[in-house]
This record gives sequence, C-alpha cells and structure tokens, in this order.
Amino acid sequence: MRHRILISGLLALAAALTVLLGPRDPARALDLKAKEYELRNGLKLVVIPDHRAPVVTHMVWYRVGAADEPAGKSGLTHFLEHLMFKGTDKVPAGEFTRIVKRHGGQDNAFTTADNTAYFQRIAKENLGLVMRLEADRMQNLKLTSKDVETEREVIKEERRMRTENNPRALFAERLNAALFVAHPYRRPIVGWMDDVRRLRLSDAMAFYRKYYTPANAIVVVAGDVEPGEVLKLAEKHYGSLINTAPKAERVRTREPRPLAARRVVMRDARVKAPIIQRMYVAPAYPRAKKGEAHALEVFAQAFGEGATSLLYRRLVVGERIATWAGAWYDGNNRDYGTIGIYATPAPGVSMERLEARLDALIGEVLEKGLPEKDVKRAANALVAEATYALDSQFYLARMVGDALTTGSSLADIREWEARILKVTPERAVAAARAVMRPENSVTGLLLKAEPSANAADARAKGPAAAGKPAREKAE
Amino acid sequence: MRHRILISGLLALAAALTVLLGPRDPARALDLKAKEYELRNGLKLVVIPDHRAPVVTHMVWYRVGAADEPAGKSGLTHFLEHLMFKGTDKVPAGEFTRIVKRHGGQDNAFTTADNTAYFQRIAKENLGLVMRLEADRMQNLKLTSKDVETEREVIKEERRMRTENNPRALFAERLNAALFVAHPYRRPIVGWMDDVRRLRLSDAMAFYRKYYTPANAIVVVAGDVEPGEVLKLAEKHYGSLINTAPKAERVRTREPRPLAARRVVMRDARVKAPIIQRMYVAPAYPRAKKGEAHALEVFAQAFGEGATSLLYRRLVVGERIATWAGAWYDGNNRDYGTIGIYATPAPGVSMERLEARLDALIGEVLEKGLPEKDVKRAANALVAEATYALDSQFYLARMVGDALTTGSSLADIREWEARILKVTPERAVAAARAVMRPENSVTGLLLKAEPSANAADARAKGPAAAGKPAREKAE
Repeated sequence: MRHRILISGLLALAAALTVLLGPRDPARALDLKAKEYELRNGLKLVVIPDHRAPVVTHMVWYRVGAADEPAGKSGLTHFLEHLMFKGTDKVPAGEFTRIVKRHGGQDNAFTTADNTAYFQRIAKENLGLVMRLEADRMQNLKLTSKDVETEREVIKEERRMRTENNPRALFAERLNAALFVAHPYRRPIVGWMDDVRRLRLSDAMAFYRKYYTPANAIVVVAGDVEPGEVLKLAEKHYGSLINTAPKAERVRTREPRPLAARRVVMRDARVKAPIIQRMYVAPAYPRAKKGEAHALEVFAQAFGEGATSLLYRRLVVGERIATWAGAWYDGNNRDYGTIGIYATPAPGVSMERLEARLDALIGEVLEKGLPEKDVKRAANALVAEATYALDSQFYLARMVGDALTTGSSLADIREWEARILKVTPERAVAAARAVMRPENSVTGLLLKAEPSANAADARAKGPAAAGKPAREKAE
Repeated sequence: MRHRILISGLLALAAALTVLLGPRDPARALDLKAKEYELRNGLKLVVIPDHRAPVVTHMVWYRVGAADEPAGKSGLTHFLEHLMFKGTDKVPAGEFTRIVKRHGGQDNAFTTADNTAYFQRIAKENLGLVMRLEADRMQNLKLTSKDVETEREVIKEERRMRTENNPRALFAERLNAALFVAHPYRRPIVGWMDDVRRLRLSDAMAFYRKYYTPANAIVVVAGDVEPGEVLKLAEKHYGSLINTAPKAERVRTREPRPLAARRVVMRDARVKAPIIQRMYVAPAYPRAKKGEAHALEVFAQAFGEGATSLLYRRLVVGERIATWAGAWYDGNNRDYGTIGIYATPAPGVSMERLEARLDALIGEVLEKGLPEKDVKRAANALVAEATYALDSQFYLARMVGDALTTGSSLADIREWEARILKVTPERAVAAARAVMRPENSVTGLLLKAEPSANAADARAKGPAAAGKPAREKAE
C-alpha cells in the first residue's frame, strides 16, 4: 500500500511471540490466552490478549500471495492489495483510511509471496468499526476502470523508483530469478514490468473473487481485549459473509532436483561498492524436518550475522580482504527458504581473490564445523533479538498471521526458542552441509560497469571499493 | 504423440516453400495457387497444390503452445495433445489412428512452445475422411479419469527417458531456463516433472475448451488437390463447428531488459564429452525488424555451421583446441529466437582455455567482421539446404502452419530467399553485434562429475575428452 512494509525474516517475528509465550515461562503463554476459533463460514480467528495499552492491532490475512498468481500476471496480488483501498458502495474510495485516521488509528497493507494482509492499529473501542470496514471490503469491493488505470501507474512508478532505478534491487531480482529454476518464488512480488502493464480490472476482480473469501481469511487481533468479546464481534461482522468461491488450491511448481551451479554477473555504472552474493535454496520452517530450520538459523547466525560472526572475524577483521561480509537464513516462507552469503571486497582486493577465500572458508566450516562457543552465542543472540522484538504488538500479530498462512502453527512458534537453544554445532553444520552444495546455488557479482565489457564478462574480475551488501526481499 | 517429432529450425522449413514459391521463379509460386480462406466460424484454411503424387498432407494447427500454459501446469499442451487420441462418442479411443492406417495413411501430432498440430498423410480420396475425424475431435473429445491417469504415466516415462536419463537434455533444459528470465520459453515443453504429476482431467478439458475452437485453428492441406474442392470439403466438415469460447488471448511475459551475464555449470558422472555452450536471446522471424532475422541466420551459418565455417576452421582445424564447434540461429518462434555457440575441447585442452579462445574469436568477428566469401557461401548454403528440403510435402505444410501460428505470413515465406541472398557481411555482423552481448547471454558448461566438487564449482575448470554438442529443442 502507500507505505510499503518490508517483511523481515521469521527470525524476529517468531522470536517475539516465542519469548512472550515461550518455554521459558510456559505458564505465561497460557495466561495470554492466545485463542484460535473458526467461524461457520470457515474464517479463522486468533486472539492474542496484550493488556499493556488500551489499543488493538487488527489484521486480516488472505492465504494468497505473489507465488499464486496466474501465468503472465505477476504483480496481481500486490495490484489487488492497492485496489482494496478503492472502496465499496458503503465506503467510497479513500474513505477507509480517513475513517481509521479520524478515530486516531493507522492502517496499511502488505503483500508477500505467500500472503496478503491488511491491518489497523487503533483504540480498542474501535475494533468493531475496523472489523466492519474489513468485512465490507472482503465482499463488496467496487472497482472502476479509472481506479485500475490510476493504480497501475502508481505501481509502475513504485517499481521504477524501488527497482529499476536501483542496481542492487535489480541485482537481487535477477539473482532470485536464477536461484529458483521453476518455483514461482523466482518472480518479483511487485511483478515484472511487462506483466504490470497488462494487469486489468477483470484480472483483479477474478483474483479477488477467487481468494478473498471468509474460508481463505485469517483474522488476527492482538491487544487489550478478551477472546470471548472478540469472537462475538467477529461473528457479528464476519459471520454472515458468504464463500463465493470454493477454497482455492495453491498450485506451485516445486523446484526440480538441483543440478547446476548458477552465476549472474551484472555490471552497472551506478555501482559504488561491488558485491558478491551467494544464495542456496534451503528448507523453510513450515516444511523442514524437525529442528532443521532451527539448525540453519543458528548456523547462519554463527557463521555470518554481525561483527562477532566467524565470517566477519576472518574476512573483515583478520584478513582484511573484505569491508563487509555476512550471512543469513530466511526460512519465513511456505515452500522454500534461502541461505545467503555476501561480501564486499576491500580496496585493492580482486573479486576473484575474495570469492576464492569465501569458498575456502565455507569449505572449511562445512568440513571442520563451527566452534561450540560461536554456536552457543548465536543461539543466545537469536533469543535476545526475540526479546527485543517482543515489545511490538504489531510484530506479534504479524508473526501469528504469517505462520498460519504459510503452514506453521502456534505450537511451532511456542517451540521455537527451545529448539533454537537445543541446536548443537554438529546439527548446525550438518544442516548447512545438506543445503550449501554448489548445484543448489547461485553466485552473483554486482560490479561497476567498465568501458571494455566483453563476452568474457560472465567470469569474475575487477577491482573493488567499499560498501554494504544488498539484502532485500523482492517485495 | 507416440512418435515425437523434433521441430527443426525455420531454416529448412522456410527454405522449402521459398524455393518452391520463391523469387527465382515467381511465376511458379503462382502456378502452385497456394490459397488462403477463412470459414464463417473463423477457421483458416490454406491449400497448397502439389501434384507430384496422389496424396495429401492434412494438418490441423491450434494457436496454442507450451508458452500459453497456466501457472503450475507446464506440460499441459503436450498432455492434451496425447489425450486427443483418446476418442469421442463416434470414434472410440485408439480408433482414430486405426482408421487412418486402414486407409493406408499415417498420422501423428506434435507440440511446440507456440502451437500444437495434428496431421495425416493419406491418399487424396480420403481427405474428407480425415477432415471428418479431426472436426469430430475438435469439439467432441471425451476423456475418462482412466485415460488421464494412463497418459500421465506415459508422459512421465517419456520425460524420464528423454530428459532425466540424459545429461545433455537436462543441461539444455537448465540452460534454457537460465537464458529466459521471465518469458515462458524458459519452461520445458514436456513440462517440469512436478507439474506433469499434477495435471488432471479438469485441466485438460478447460484447456481444450478454451483453445480448441474453429476460430483458433488453421487447417493446412498440401497435396494433389485443387483449392476449390478442398474449400468445399472443409466447409462440409469444419463449417458447422461452433466457437465454444471467445478467441483466447496469448498472455506471455516479455523478457525484461537484459542486465546480467548468466552461467550454468552442471557436472554429471555420465558425461563423456564436456561441452561449452553459449546462448543469446535474439529476435525471431515474426517480430524482427525487416531483414534482421535473415542477417542473423546468415551470420550463424557463416560463423558456425559445418566444417567450412569460420569457427570450425579456426578452433577445430587450425588451432586444434576443439574436437567440435558450431553455431546456430533459431528464429522459428513467435516471440524470441536464440543464437547458440558450442564447442567440445580437444584432449588435454582445459575448458578455461577453450572458453577464452571462443570469446576472443567472437570478439574478433564482431569487431572486424566476417570475410565476404564466407557470407556469400553461407547464404548460398542456406538456399541450397532449402532446395533439399523442398522434396517433402510434409515440411511444406508444416512450414505454412508454423508460420501462420507464430505471426509470419505466406508473403514472409515467399520473400525469405531474396532476403537471405541480400544479406551483406556488414548487415550480418551488425545484427549479431546487437544480439551477442554478455548481459544477453547464458554460458553453460557440461562437465564430467569429479569426486572433489566443491563450492567453487561455478567457475570453469578441468580437462576434457572429445564429443558432439547438444543442440536439441526442449520438446
């Protein structure tokens, strides 16, 4: 929507609720009375009492994301998300946000590869109001051709500003498209420009009718409320909604067996700091074997998160061949996660040399393992980050919605911290070893364009300056 | 269908009719009276008299191919092609082919990225018979769940044998998927295995109803017939068919601006002769600027087709660093063509050295141009190949169907030879220069798997044996 929100990893999210509800104080989780309900039309409701302030966060999640779009219509989920602010017979265009504001609240929306969410943060006595507004637009959206034309231009401009004009965003987009061979995660969430240009009123309405049904929605309410009272309000506002379409199947091509290491070399005159970035397709939380995603999370944290990580200590502090280096695990998707590693060469260091050292270090860690104290510190750091994230009611609600629309459960969230703390160095490295195979990877080089580019450019070369790595999600 | 036919380039096809109809004897083209008609239901008919033998080739073309498939349903076009032999109320499963055989004819079908075609070759007096059969299955296909189950297994086995068990086919598939960033040409025509597994009766029937309509079909008849008599037969058999769906739009994502050279390195224990293969996205005949595709055709022929080509003379005969080397242009698609270059290193020559020489040679040719005599010889060779292809009535009909379903016209075919012969060395190289840019390419290495594969594998290395290159279309 107007102010886009980047979705951070499950890390912070899962951590937030885990610490709140987690095993360190299981009684407290029960005290919170996080309750799940299902209305007769199939709409799911989750209520998370949080009495620190007299406010509520109200979110409506739809189990549809960019990875569910029809062929040639990438960007449609995000397009519809924008159009959902265009209004209904009862609430004219733009009025939704004005009503929320008039009551002192804020509202917005976001789209990921797996889900679409609309939310408001508002004084608790207005929960019924925002439920009425959301229920209304779940079934009564009215679009005109003009709405669609206007919003398409807004999105094209958004794409131009955020992606086309940003070499790192373009680089991330192309790397992602090379990492996934067949699965729709390879497509940008905002859509390929050529597809966005062709999105039409009929596309948006067909998508809306297919996916915006009560049985495909999850309402999450966190705040200064009691579950029983929220259930009553939900029944009042959402209970009478009708399923206008059968529950939509999510048809997504799974990745074929990984067979070939890939490489993407992009040159752009606007690049100031060259980057090398390696990515691997990894299991995601909802589909990983027990403890596997947790092991990858701890591995990535120990190997490359922050200035205390092994990668940083070795390449930046010790050998001084990189000005920046890091790694991450993103397991916060329905079908696949990623492990990523990035570095920027120090002045005078060639990309080839940096890559060779990076490869050697990866090889060494996968063979010899990680120091136990690094793994312990990583697990503790993950839990500590979670403690920090705890403060946000918004994150809390978002984590629950995100988990439930991607195939995780509240139980998975509750067990997260315990599983993180149980990860041994052996388990962390074994999980990484299974993922970090060349044929399962793409290696990207983002380089400053040189005048003499020629057909040999797909190989690494060239000097380098300093800078920060790209680590954005495509949305 | 049962005996798959690989689609060769437009080259031989276009050449066939061009020589038959072409500028060297324009009067003869008129003598042939190649006639186009349109029935009232929108079905197009092309008749090409060919009185050399008392036979006809009857083809029904549908303007739908693998690039038109819904998301997550790759392989559906080919799946439906198989299912079209399952029968109707009047013609039970398997009966179609038996009837054709009983009358001394042959029949088959094929699927490409852009179209699907069914054909029979039969004695001319049976033209009405095969028209009746094709008209019947254009509207009355009956499928059972068992048909669908059985045929899905047949196709999975076809994919296993032709692709999964063949490292070169796998390599070609992954290269292709890396060459096209967003356009559906990146998907294999037979489909990703995961998609094939999920193809259902309802998918096939929805696709059939949407695309198998008279207004979306082109009937091509070549043979010992007169246009007027064929038109009467076509009106009798096809004229009463009803358009059960509006003419289907072909929604295909165009490629985003090329930005990054890509690289695919595949190791397989079954590889005997390593290969390097470079591919570029090029304009295709139907969408190229005037003469541009012809210039690329001549360039590829002069640069790399056969033992007299510059590439072969230099790398195989002269420097002896390759045992095989070649290049091709394939412009026979609706949206994009490709230029490809491949080589196999001579014993003892490293892939790195071969690639460096290949790059240097490409650079040299793009900068300094091609010898005039090579270009002349290439153009003449293309025309000569066409003369050879001329003999086949089947090719003749296929070329016309192919052209008309991808956006070319009979006039384009007629002008082909003249345009080929007009290509100058400057024009050929200028066209190649616009296409053969690193950011527009993928470079693939197919290597014998070594025991010590590690994370640095995305870079070229290793010794090599001898062999022939892969140059298959994915279908």
